Amino acid sequence: QYLQGAHDAWSGWMCVLLVGVFAGALAGFIDIGASWLSDIKEGICRDAFWLNREQCCWSANDTTLDEERCSQWYSWAEMVGIRTSGGGAYIVRYMFYIIWGCMFALTAAMFVRVFAPYACGSGIPEIKTILSGFIIRGYLGKWTLLTKSIGMMLSVAAGLSLGKEGPYVHVACCCGNIFSYLFPKYGSNEAKKREVLSAASAAGVSVAFGAPIGGVLFSLEEVSYYFPLKTLWRSFFCALAAAFVLRAINPFGNDHLVMFYIEYNEPWYPQELVPFMLIGALGGLYGSLFIKLNIKWCRYRKSSVLGKYPIIEVLVVAFVTTLLSFPNPYTRMNTSEMIRMLVSRCGPEDTYDLCDYKRNFTDPKSYMSSTYAGDGVIRALWMLFLALIFKGIITVFTFGMKVPSGLFIPSMAVGAIMGRIIGIGMEQLVVAHRDSPLFKNMCQSECVVTPGLYAMVGAAAALGGVTRMTISLVVIMFELTGGLQYIVPLMLAAMASKWVGDALGRQGIYDAHIRLNGYPYLDNKEEFTHTTIAADVMRPRRNDPPLCVITQESMTLEQIETILKETEHNGFPVVVSLESQYLVGFATRKDLKLAIANARKNIDGVVSDSVVYFTNQIPSGGSGPAPLKLRKILDLAPVTITDQTPMETVVEMFRKLGLRQTLVTVNGRLLGIITKKDVLRHIIQLQNQDPDSILFN
Amino acid sequence: QYLQGAHDAWSGWMCVLLVGVFAGALAGFIDIGASWLSDIKEGICRDAFWLNREQCCWSANDTTLDEERCSQWYSWAEMVGIRTSGGGAYIVRYMFYIIWGCMFALTAAMFVRVFAPYACGSGIPEIKTILSGFIIRGYLGKWTLLTKSIGMMLSVAAGLSLGKEGPYVHVACCCGNIFSYLFPKYGSNEAKKREVLSAASAAGVSVAFGAPIGGVLFSLEEVSYYFPLKTLWRSFFCALAAAFVLRAINPFGNDHLVMFYIEYNEPWYPQELVPFMLIGALGGLYGSLFIKLNIKWCRYRKSSVLGKYPIIEVLVVAFVTTLLSFPNPYTRMNTSEMIRMLVSRCGPEDTYDLCDYKRNFTDPKSYMSSTYAGDGVIRALWMLFLALIFKGIITVFTFGMKVPSGLFIPSMAVGAIMGRIIGIGMEQLVVAHRDSPLFKNMCQSECVVTPGLYAMVGAAAALGGVTRMTISLVVIMFELTGGLQYIVPLMLAAMASKWVGDALGRQGIYDAHIRLNGYPYLDNKEEFTHTTIAADVMRPRRNDPPLCVITQESMTLEQIETILKETEHNGFPVVVSLESQYLVGFATRKDLKLAIANARKNIDGVVSDSVVYFTNQIPSGGSGPAPLKLRKILDLAPVTITDQTPMETVVEMFRKLGLRQTLVTVNGRLLGIITKKDVLRHIIQLQNQDPDSILFN
Repeated sequence: QYLQGAHDAWSGWMCVLLVGVFAGALAGFIDIGASWLSDIKEGICRDAFWLNREQCCWSANDTTLDEERCSQWYSWAEMVGIRTSGGGAYIVRYMFYIIWGCMFALTAAMFVRVFAPYACGSGIPEIKTILSGFIIRGYLGKWTLLTKSIGMMLSVAAGLSLGKEGPYVHVACCCGNIFSYLFPKYGSNEAKKREVLSAASAAGVSVAFGAPIGGVLFSLEEVSYYFPLKTLWRSFFCALAAAFVLRAINPFGNDHLVMFYIEYNEPWYPQELVPFMLIGALGGLYGSLFIKLNIKWCRYRKSSVLGKYPIIEVLVVAFVTTLLSFPNPYTRMNTSEMIRMLVSRCGPEDTYDLCDYKRNFTDPKSYMSSTYAGDGVIRALWMLFLALIFKGIITVFTFGMKVPSGLFIPSMAVGAIMGRIIGIGMEQLVVAHRDSPLFKNMCQSECVVTPGLYAMVGAAAALGGVTRMTISLVVIMFELTGGLQYIVPLMLAAMASKWVGDALGRQGIYDAHIRLNGYPYLDNKEEFTHTTIAADVMRPRRNDPPLCVITQESMTLEQIETILKETEHNGFPVVVSLESQYLVGFATRKDLKLAIANARKNIDGVVSDSVVYFTNQIPSGGSGPAPLKLRKILDLAPVTITDQTPMETVVEMFRKLGLRQTLVTVNGRLLGIITKKDVLRHIIQLQNQDPDSILFN
Repeated sequence: QYLQGAHDAWSGWMCVLLVGVFAGALAGFIDIGASWLSDIKEGICRDAFWLNREQCCWSANDTTLDEERCSQWYSWAEMVGIRTSGGGAYIVRYMFYIIWGCMFALTAAMFVRVFAPYACGSGIPEIKTILSGFIIRGYLGKWTLLTKSIGMMLSVAAGLSLGKEGPYVHVACCCGNIFSYLFPKYGSNEAKKREVLSAASAAGVSVAFGAPIGGVLFSLEEVSYYFPLKTLWRSFFCALAAAFVLRAINPFGNDHLVMFYIEYNEPWYPQELVPFMLIGALGGLYGSLFIKLNIKWCRYRKSSVLGKYPIIEVLVVAFVTTLLSFPNPYTRMNTSEMIRMLVSRCGPEDTYDLCDYKRNFTDPKSYMSSTYAGDGVIRALWMLFLALIFKGIITVFTFGMKVPSGLFIPSMAVGAIMGRIIGIGMEQLVVAHRDSPLFKNMCQSECVVTPGLYAMVGAAAALGGVTRMTISLVVIMFELTGGLQYIVPLMLAAMASKWVGDALGRQGIYDAHIRLNGYPYLDNKEEFTHTTIAADVMRPRRNDPPLCVITQESMTLEQIETILKETEHNGFPVVVSLESQYLVGFATRKDLKLAIANARKNIDGVVSDSVVYFTNQIPSGGSGPAPLKLRKILDLAPVTITDQTPMETVVEMFRKLGLRQTLVTVNGRLLGIITKKDVLRHIIQLQNQDPDSILFN
């Protein structure tokens, strides 16, 4: 018995360890694959095509460390024979960029279409629904896992405006589901399996951002429905194992545990809180605008002819994306590369446009303070502005297409661009008015405004506006940038973003997609404050036919079969008699059908006229055909409430106990039933929306 | 209505902001007071007695920066006229140290005794109980707040082996309780008030360690019972506000947001995981041993004559503590000062014993690598060992005395000493066997073992063993030391500590104290895995008299008054009739008494023979005295279960819905009742312990 207990405890840890290790390994594999495919769009390593650009140049052992060129790496223009870097080469590269991008996107869409339709999207809305107790068969299966992993590489490499961070959560959850079957304690119990899935989703975020603590908080705050505290620790272990494995694989050849590491440590000043708050508010505005437009577009796709040609849609979006993103260097580059650049400070060796300040180059430390912007910065600002518009619009059309697509990175990119633009504006403002009393304390000898910090705050604000994360957002930003000293600016922006976003529309993107898809998800963050009671919600309504019930000892087999045939309810209350309606228990349709089929086949003497008994004892000596005893399939402990119970309590019971239905009684008599869908409909009605137009389609 | 909503939302933020600001301010005040009183034990600032040593020396403006001496600060030996530093001065200083310590302890105990008995201890067990739904009147009142604040300063200054970190949680919760009355939404609703208290306890830990994220996780993991996700964000805000205010007050004159900042950034090696795990296991061992002994001693105190003389007990312990701690520099110094020293690395300017290594002083960077220990280190090891024994033993007797006392710092101190000793051992082992294949990779040119890291891991391990915190422990350690790169060692030690601790005894110190005091706390971390059903637990038992019920329309006022007089139940089920026992509702004793007293006084014609009606309609035309209608006091939605409900479900309902009792029915008829105490008794019985000996005394 002691051994049993030890094995029990051990198997949980073993399971999450396996999940963590595999999630980390898969993430590394996907990272490597996506980076190779991304580089293929631009060129190829002639002697070893399986190497990506960085590895290729590294293996070439060039003595000249030129960022742009190395002897082994051939751009497509070079491959077709154009060795000059004139207009011809540009057009060839442009064409190849578009062709490869469309091909990758097409392959990804085909993969999803053929092998696993569930592999599309980010998967987080569905995982939320699954963790709330709804079962979507096959959603976390091995085919979905495989298709999503490969599809993700392709769709990211295609250059579409999407990230692989959200889908990592789905991939990790697939691992969780698959491995839980190795441990009977978890595989055979849905509630236990959900614990593993909670841990897995923490691991997913952990590998996506190298943020184990943020991952656990994300799982707690955003994904999980029930989060027993003892899983907290196990989830953390899982997230840490995943991050550790990914770090050991080291797909980027750098310290992945801090993805957008910021090297500066400048203080921020109280005056700066004003632009930070402005950035936060803009992030919230962007978020809710994005949600509104994206949902509108998804609804249009669902209801129109567009939904019938998902592959063509992907192809068109891929074409437009690649066509428009190639000319602009900020959209052509990898999105996370761009975010890294935006949150960084311009160092002495950075020569690109964004860092073209009028510096005194004789002083090696001059880059640590702010100064006037050169022409390059103005050019870069225009480019960034165009990139902002483009990214903002194209993401609306991209998220929800039938390819694996995440939303974290595009949202952060939009926010980072916005933040950087405002940051540079603030910088120039301070530099130009360095003697103004407003900015006096910021300029001792040199003014210090760090536009990278503004970009970081902007990324947090936009991500917060789109997902409505709170504490997990702040912690993820810490772990992502290592900037623990910027807790107040980040927090302020996150708060402003959430307040503005919530004022314009309560739901985050995931909740909006849950409702769009009509999943039976009972939100556990909203308070239910109405004063309705159970009698207002329960069925049958006043003029409906009475509730369909089974009596415990007077119905014949045929009568029950008729009920099963004529109704579609998932279960039936069993009462003492039709007249008294005293509740005995609840029998599900599935159990009833199975038991009756079994009895018909195996028990002699059971015919249509047999009386079905749900009681303990059967009155002996009755004439007629052999009776059928079905007490063992009866749920003798159905959850009941009275008709006067406030709906506030009922909603809480549904949420906290994970009910699917509850029976309504008065003085012991059965009066009606409330199902989860009734509750959802009721909530939507109270929000003055039409329940039928939205739910369960 | 819109304004109403905005005010509603706003008031929550306002409330936690106030709580955070005040908790931070109070913490700053207590820190300053305690540091001043601590210094008073050793000497006084002659010209300005209200300054502590640091401020005094600072204001003296001495040109020589001698750590030990400054012109304005007079030790007590100097004050009585002994200016030499010989034996006489030592004895005088020793005596003053003891006298001041005993006086402070005595004053603290008197304060607690006279003004607020609830101010003793750490307060966390009681706050856990309060957050689980039990009400302890006055526990969070203003007198407790005041007494605890002052008592904390005194007991810390007395040099007792206790910390002020746990009590900060209590102080912050008092603030939370007091401020919640300013906002009717929170003051008048116990459930809402608990949300504020959860946020307040996060603020308490936040100011104790400068760890806002750790504070929120501590509140989530350890203190709170229900933690609605929307409070998470507000708690974080509260914790951050508190930390910010404390930092602005800056009681220590340094950057308090990282209390034990570690300045090193050395890597750790895989071999080191073995000693880390050993430290973790020892921490777990220490923790469970401490809990066992402390509980034994507390029980002895409760049952013996000792409990009657709390003040003498405090005095004796204070005398023994000061007597034994003065000779040893490591126990004489402030405990958090000692921890800071132990987790640090020996720098080039550190000349004390612990840093007496045989270094090559010509190389300024030699302190960055390990080398052979000198005699001073051996001396320091002996001192540390004695301090370990002393701290370990005296804390058992100190925690639970009638003074405000926390456990975080003493536990961390024990762990840090242990860790540092093992760390130095490991260091010497590696240095001595630098060519062994085991340690080869650790010694490139010079070996690098950081004993401070071992101390940090040890502190986490011991704290984990005592409190059984998990993720919050790791996060607090990060925020406390800034050592995000040591996540794996910390995690490993915390896991080893928890596993070893749980194997030796499931309960953490707070849960053990909850049970010791017999609070009705239903643990929500333990899984209930037994197969008992409600019928096994409910009362009346088989041979008991039947359940005491009230009928809905046949009892006279006198009969009900008799029931109220003869029983002590807190409430009574109301049924249709005694024969049928169909359940109508539930009436609490309080409401019944109030309603009856009211009716007797105010309604004409109500006499003892009046029939009491709980129904909607009253049969008209009856003769006899005027009837009494009491339907409005009836709870028409009592939670009911059937007798076949598994106890697993019942326990879950008690936990998640916060029930105090549930009624047991079968086929609509009332069968019995299960109260929270019945459930607690049942759980303890299943653990093969005698329920009566432990509970509710």
